Amino acid sequence: MEKIRVGIIGAGRIGQVHAKSITYHIPQAQLVAISDIYEEGAKSVAAQLGIPNYYKDYHKILEDPSIDAVLICSSTDTHADIACEAAAAGKHIFCEKPVDLTVAKIKKVIDAVDKAGVKLQIGFNRRYDHNFAYIKQLENNGKLGSLQTVKITSRDPEPPSIDYVKVSGGIFLDMTVHDFDMARFIGGEVDEVYANATVMVDPAIGEAGDVDTALVALKFKSGAIGVIDNCRRASYGYDQRLEVFGSKGQASAANDTPTNVAFIDENGSVTDKPLYFFLERYMQSFTDEMTEFIDCVINDKPTKTTVYDGLEALRLGLAAKKSVAEHRPVKLSEIEGC
Amino acid sequence: MEKIRVGIIGAGRIGQVHAKSITYHIPQAQLVAISDIYEEGAKSVAAQLGIPNYYKDYHKILEDPSIDAVLICSSTDTHADIACEAAAAGKHIFCEKPVDLTVAKIKKVIDAVDKAGVKLQIGFNRRYDHNFAYIKQLENNGKLGSLQTVKITSRDPEPPSIDYVKVSGGIFLDMTVHDFDMARFIGGEVDEVYANATVMVDPAIGEAGDVDTALVALKFKSGAIGVIDNCRRASYGYDQRLEVFGSKGQASAANDTPTNVAFIDENGSVTDKPLYFFLERYMQSFTDEMTEFIDCVINDKPTKTTVYDGLEALRLGLAAKKSVAEHRPVKLSEIEGC
Amino acid sequence: MEKIRVGIIGAGRIGQVHAKSITYHIPQAQLVAISDIYEEGAKSVAAQLGIPNYYKDYHKILEDPSIDAVLICSSTDTHADIACEAAAAGKHIFCEKPVDLTVAKIKKVIDAVDKAGVKLQIGFNRRYDHNFAYIKQLENNGKLGSLQTVKITSRDPEPPSIDYVKVSGGIFLDMTVHDFDMARFIGGEVDEVYANATVMVDPAIGEAGDVDTALVALKFKSGAIGVIDNCRRASYGYDQRLEVFGSKGQASAANDTPTNVAFIDENGSVTDKPLYFFLERYMQSFTDEMTEFIDCVINDKPTKTTVYDGLEALRLGLAAKKSVAEHRPVKLSEIEGC
Amino acid sequence: MEKIRVGIIGAGRIGQVHAKSITYHIPQAQLVAISDIYEEGAKSVAAQLGIPNYYKDYHKILEDPSIDAVLICSSTDTHADIACEAAAAGKHIFCEKPVDLTVAKIKKVIDAVDKAGVKLQIGFNRRYDHNFAYIKQLENNGKLGSLQTVKITSRDPEPPSIDYVKVSGGIFLDMTVHDFDMARFIGGEVDEVYANATVMVDPAIGEAGDVDTALVALKFKSGAIGVIDNCRRASYGYDQRLEVFGSKGQASAANDTPTNVAFIDENGSVTDKPLYFFLERYMQSFTDEMTEFIDCVINDKPTKTTVYDGLEALRLGLAAKKSVAEHRPVKLSEIEGC
Repeated sequence: MEKIRVGIIGAGRIGQVHAKSITYHIPQAQLVAISDIYEEGAKSVAAQLGIPNYYKDYHKILEDPSIDAVLICSSTDTHADIACEAAAAGKHIFCEKPVDLTVAKIKKVIDAVDKAGVKLQIGFNRRYDHNFAYIKQLENNGKLGSLQTVKITSRDPEPPSIDYVKVSGGIFLDMTVHDFDMARFIGGEVDEVYANATVMVDPAIGEAGDVDTALVALKFKSGAIGVIDNCRRASYGYDQRLEVFGSKGQASAANDTPTNVAFIDENGSVTDKPLYFFLERYMQSFTDEMTEFIDCVINDKPTKTTVYDGLEALRLGLAAKKSVAEHRPVKLSEIEGC
Repeated sequence: MEKIRVGIIGAGRIGQVHAKSITYHIPQAQLVAISDIYEEGAKSVAAQLGIPNYYKDYHKILEDPSIDAVLICSSTDTHADIACEAAAAGKHIFCEKPVDLTVAKIKKVIDAVDKAGVKLQIGFNRRYDHNFAYIKQLENNGKLGSLQTVKITSRDPEPPSIDYVKVSGGIFLDMTVHDFDMARFIGGEVDEVYANATVMVDPAIGEAGDVDTALVALKFKSGAIGVIDNCRRASYGYDQRLEVFGSKGQASAANDTPTNVAFIDENGSVTDKPLYFFLERYMQSFTDEMTEFIDCVINDKPTKTTVYDGLEALRLGLAAKKSVAEHRPVKLSEIEGC
Repeated sequence: MEKIRVGIIGAGRIGQVHAKSITYHIPQAQLVAISDIYEEGAKSVAAQLGIPNYYKDYHKILEDPSIDAVLICSSTDTHADIACEAAAAGKHIFCEKPVDLTVAKIKKVIDAVDKAGVKLQIGFNRRYDHNFAYIKQLENNGKLGSLQTVKITSRDPEPPSIDYVKVSGGIFLDMTVHDFDMARFIGGEVDEVYANATVMVDPAIGEAGDVDTALVALKFKSGAIGVIDNCRRASYGYDQRLEVFGSKGQASAANDTPTNVAFIDENGSVTDKPLYFFLERYMQSFTDEMTEFIDCVINDKPTKTTVYDGLEALRLGLAAKKSVAEHRPVKLSEIEGC
Repeated sequence: MEKIRVGIIGAGRIGQVHAKSITYHIPQAQLVAISDIYEEGAKSVAAQLGIPNYYKDYHKILEDPSIDAVLICSSTDTHADIACEAAAAGKHIFCEKPVDLTVAKIKKVIDAVDKAGVKLQIGFNRRYDHNFAYIKQLENNGKLGSLQTVKITSRDPEPPSIDYVKVSGGIFLDMTVHDFDMARFIGGEVDEVYANATVMVDPAIGEAGDVDTALVALKFKSGAIGVIDNCRRASYGYDQRLEVFGSKGQASAANDTPTNVAFIDENGSVTDKPLYFFLERYMQSFTDEMTEFIDCVINDKPTKTTVYDGLEALRLGLAAKKSVAEHRPVKLSEIEGC
């Protein structure tokens, strides 16, 4: 078998996750190069994983004709431009979320990808989570009947730094965007969004123009109802749950925990808190999404999570922001699309 | 000890529940009389439980000077009038929910009770449920810290008859009203309501002018956020859960089930569905609320669940109806109060 | 309907439990008299529950020709003699466990009951526990296939007083006897017993000639295997579980708890300890066994839990004692039967 | 850092597991060679993982002076001889369980290892299981108080082939041996064993001279009690649980499952069966034990799981066999040791 030759643009935390997945778990792919504007970072990862080439400038990767596919793991503001360049260079693309925080730039990516005829998969890894994927499977198998209510709980163990909050695009584009994608993954297209939002974790988040606790009510085009509740801080850790209620049954995913041990004494029965944060909870899903991407490239299958999914998650985030700003339900059709 | 002498107005299902609680579990009270417009019903319950007197006309109960307290368990449309008469007769009052479907009539009850100086407790029995009461206790003990999100799931095993739906006042006044009270019990006063509602269980419910699936987003005056999701039918039965998320921790109440047995075979591990319906799930709470009412009367304590609580639950229901009708968030202050 | 007329011999804790069951929950039966050698006790229960007659001498009950059935709730050493007298008097008998601590006296009861043609039910209430009864039902329905392993965990929240330990007959006759009955209820007749026993809770129990921690390995005649583990003290309370493993599946009963609430914070997720002790855990089962007894008397059905069950549980206890004393597996056939 | 150079003897299932752990997860070690009597197997693994050398004859590995440590993953009957040779060659040794099925040969290994002064770790990987290791940690932290009862459930999803059964040494040496090690890991040294055993899964197992369902009662030297229940087939899969009861509390490990999803409909609430078999359930533990072995070699620490642990687990298995054969409790002191 000819191996797919892959380059990684961005050697930070998520770039390393993907680099390890390919090195250790995906024999059909081979890492050829890694780049990072912080060249030492790229060098270090290359050394650790035996990647033959490392660069400061990602163009070196795009210019290498032996490379079939690139993983865009650089900072968010660079995603769209690099994706357009990579498409122009004929590379298949795996792009980390979010593609961009503006609809306009995502449009450009869509055009570039269409024109080049390359594949693009967005890194919505939660679709590959063992629990959520199983619920999707129950839905696909008709076990749930027609969907009526989709409930997503998504709380972080700690808020990000205020510096990050200021450039994050706000909770709806930064954090809820994953939940919006999950809502669409399960419930299909959304018709309308209404968001309640408040500052209860840290006043500094409010001063930075953002909120830290939110509830988003959704109406799906199917007529079903959805709700997402978010918080930037849960004292007990990373709370990631999904409940799907349909005419035939309900499926709910509990949190994953480090162990299944119950300790009981005079204070009650104690079990573990959730796994610490996204790297622990969703580790397997990162490998699984990459496996699927490589499979799509090798076997020329369409990717299941496309740039369009990135666009729609962004539009839902923008609708939620507008709902809070204007204090009313907002139709998704009010938000510019492609 | 002198026993409190009690009369029951209405010998239907809930009247019988209270009659049994007093007969079997509350030695401090004694049933003296029961009335029902269907006299045979009153007669039968009286015979079964050894109640000395039964009547067709509830006025006989109000006119009996030996009776200290009455339980109003008649049809909803009669609650307010009987409560006013009972107050005028100097009887302490336990009144089933809802007090009335109009604010105006509840006002009259408030006036009558104030003037007479009698006690009035509303039958919001879920406040006495072992699970929910324990969560309230955790909240009171400061275990949850400051409240951020209150989530209530409330689904019935089967929708009521279409005839009932037509006179019920709609899902928000008939079903969600209990959840509104629970929301206030846990989260305090509500500032604003936004409701999504749809017909997904039975088109006939829609034709009758009601909805069967709903999601209500709440803003509490404290700044906390709430959500109630309702459905008139869950394939797996009566789904009654509460989750309270605060700065220090989260408490969640799972459904009660007939047994704690897990059966595991090649199809997976199977545990029980929830207890069938409200009589099974909330049976103990009916006894406990009655025990508290009798205690309030005997020891001249203020009742904890007052007609004001009935009023506020009604106003939340009216706000939810208005939110659906006008498709916008509705401030509770827009709804006439007292 | 003619009500069954019942007399209770013994007005202590368990006598009161049965008195309340009949008064409040079994309309087909009527309490006519109660006796206790401590006459004030009988008087007080009679007053509380409206029982027309109370006596110091239980013979008054046996001599009352209007009484159909008696409940023997007196001290263990009196059970067998009273049962014989009651049978001779033509009364149907509900007898608390254990019937006696000797095989010889149980034989006399068997003879007396056979001769008189009256019914006798032993108070092995755990057979009526909602969890265990459901497992029995799964077994009867063939869901478990052929039984392979029966595992019973039975631990008390606190050891009894040393004075009680001294006259109790030892842990196997006093505590494990319930578990032996459960083992037979689920697994059928036992062929052989091997017991490990030790003193780990309180040296005083050892000094009194008893043990406080034990493990009993069983071989059933069917070829299946069983194990009972006991302890006189569990720090977290009353631990009563059953696991049945068969060729088609496994059923396990978890402990019942006061609430179904999970509280989660930085220390983990905490749920309730088991219900405090047997009165709380098995309360419903006491009512259910009495309902069945009354039904057997009224409708002339054979009782399901007979004096023979009492005898066999005793023999298993004696076999376990012998196994510890002689440090070897003991065939049940080595223990005198009837 | 100088990497430890490792050779693997045996390229079968477990050899591959360790090869992958070292390749992917243990940067401190480097695979230099792999051997297998089926040379193509060694070649294939070498190719897949980039191991520079593969051999048919393991002596090539022992003769390579650059190799620091060997992993003995060949068939059981070769373990002891190879271990002696490896010790003589000055290699540190990781040896799969069981070391041997005879005490005599294990003695030789002990002598050889002592003489050579090399490290030897036995592959009792379950000690590294996240659940069981956490219970051990609770024990070490004093959370359980003094141990009273250790209960191990260990059931396989399917029995091995009859051909395997015939050469396996019997259930106690082949399957229970892991549970005996777990019993010692948690409860310390064992004083006495009593075993019940029967054939309930497949008569052919009985005809092959073995049993398929067993219960082993243990007395620890501490005075605590233990029980192991085994079955060669559980309809619902691989059942691996541990419950440890002490004076201060109880810890219990439930099975790991593929997902945490509960699906509820009119048939009840269904959750996953356990993970399929030992490779799935204990995968992480294989990596963790290898990480510790490499750490012991690099940092010259004593291994925690020694050949003595292998010996004692074997002696417990032999005691259990003797107990069944002689139908009596057997002191461990009756079994020849070192």
